[in-house]
Amino acid sequence: MASLLRPSHELTYAAAEIVLQGCMKKAAEIGVPQCIAIVDTGGHLLAFARMDGAKFHAQRSATQKAITAASTRGATGAAPQDFGVNLSLATGGMTTNLKGGLPILRDGQLVGAVGIGSGTGEQDVEVAQAGIAALEKALAAN
Amino acid sequence: MASLLRPSHELTYAAAEIVLQGCMKKAAEIGVPQCIAIVDTGGHLLAFARMDGAKFHAQRSATQKAITAASTRGATGAAPQDFGVNLSLATGGMTTNLKGGLPILRDGQLVGAVGIGSGTGEQDVEVAQAGIAALEKALAAN
Amino acid sequence: MASLLRPSHELTYAAAEIVLQGCMKKAAEIGVPQCIAIVDTGGHLLAFARMDGAKFHAQRSATQKAITAASTRGATGAAPQDFGVNLSLATGGMTTNLKGGLPILRDGQLVGAVGIGSGTGEQDVEVAQAGIAALEKALAAN
Amino acid sequence: MASLLRPSHELTYAAAEIVLQGCMKKAAEIGVPQCIAIVDTGGHLLAFARMDGAKFHAQRSATQKAITAASTRGATGAAPQDFGVNLSLATGGMTTNLKGGLPILRDGQLVGAVGIGSGTGEQDVEVAQAGIAALEKALAAN
Repeated sequence: MASLLRPSHELTYAAAEIVLQGCMKKAAEIGVPQCIAIVDTGGHLLAFARMDGAKFHAQRSATQKAITAASTRGATGAAPQDFGVNLSLATGGMTTNLKGGLPILRDGQLVGAVGIGSGTGEQDVEVAQAGIAALEKALAAN
Repeated sequence: MASLLRPSHELTYAAAEIVLQGCMKKAAEIGVPQCIAIVDTGGHLLAFARMDGAKFHAQRSATQKAITAASTRGATGAAPQDFGVNLSLATGGMTTNLKGGLPILRDGQLVGAVGIGSGTGEQDVEVAQAGIAALEKALAAN
Repeated sequence: MASLLRPSHELTYAAAEIVLQGCMKKAAEIGVPQCIAIVDTGGHLLAFARMDGAKFHAQRSATQKAITAASTRGATGAAPQDFGVNLSLATGGMTTNLKGGLPILRDGQLVGAVGIGSGTGEQDVEVAQAGIAALEKALAAN
Repeated sequence: MASLLRPSHELTYAAAEIVLQGCMKKAAEIGVPQCIAIVDTGGHLLAFARMDGAKFHAQRSATQKAITAASTRGATGAAPQDFGVNLSLATGGMTTNLKGGLPILRDGQLVGAVGIGSGTGEQDVEVAQAGIAALEKALAAN
């Protein structure tokens, strides 16, 4: 018989806060105020921060990057431009092809995602990576 | 240290199909064609059926009932009317106070939800319950 | 006198289920979990499945592909990109230029449509075609 | 001559975090996990937390409460129900008549707002008040 329930793990708020703090520390280091969104595996917001000086519209793009990374279980911004635009339109803007969204994986399984907006794509990715690294360090120490 | 990951379970598609078939069987029995939506714990659609004769707008209400039941981890339609309408407006229609949405629980934990629309509230609930009963039977036999 | 009524045919739920199963069989064969949406001639959802591992945002893109195929009575994704984007914007995202939506025709008349999402455009089309082929086989045997 | 510039103050992220922590402390005390949204005077999100166990749809209602409180510079939920529903409809759900949104004032001027969702209206208000009290304490000590 086919399996009926799939075991999974979700970030707690405590974990989301660690990702958030790791992102903010890196953003401060590189001098780029950011919007930072952490979502669960269903793309629902767990934690958000708009640092002083970050663009207010980036609240939305950061969140969409996190949702996209959760849905695809991969980094955002890798699709060809035409495909990315069409997919964004077809999903009511839920999916974005902007860089700065990364899945958060544990033993290869999705446990959440992070999206960063307000810097360049490269800065956004760097800040997202720092947040995930902070969580990995905390998980290793746990 | 606070716990960083929360273990959970999600319905597989095989499980969603069992709920769907259980609902359709009951709907046929009582002679009321229904829209049936099964969602995961994040409220994302897993399986849907509109039986011949069901209202097409009920696709949306059935889905919103399932989403609401997943979010609240309870049966839909129990809120006072004023509160329910205000909450529905405040969430862009994502939350509904119509009867016919039920959470699917396993050992007290949410694993998904079902929403039924096109009948009366009572018929919708009856059909939702039959779908969950079918899953419980399959889980017990597994 | 002008003709006042136009005869038409609509897929029943039983037919939609045959399309769905045909799609899922092909998706399993090629190892690509998919979101599968079947709509009627008015673009209203009849049946939907999200296979284990398919992206959750593809629920929406698969549905929009099916709606677009029903509205245009043709395969999706064939428009020049600029026109496709403008049309998508003008219809609030209801029309998509992504590949993976196909009309379901019977004697040259539209009876419904299917939309697939979560794979590449080519994989999505292949799975949609398999679903329609399964229905045609069932119609021939009927 | 008419005055051409109006001085104003905005919460920094540091202040938003103090409100957030004050809210979370009270929510933990009363045993009600909450969604907490802090916005600036323009209604744009500064900080957000969904505590473990809070309903995911409350992300949206909490945010709309904060936006409404910022726009009206008053507590949410005080309008007559008919007026509240009409206003919510007229603003595309941006204005809500649910309780749980409070403006954050300094010397009688708006500096931001907080919105709480997932508990009863009374619990939401209590948690919002605790967040503002935490900020006032920090401002007094500064």
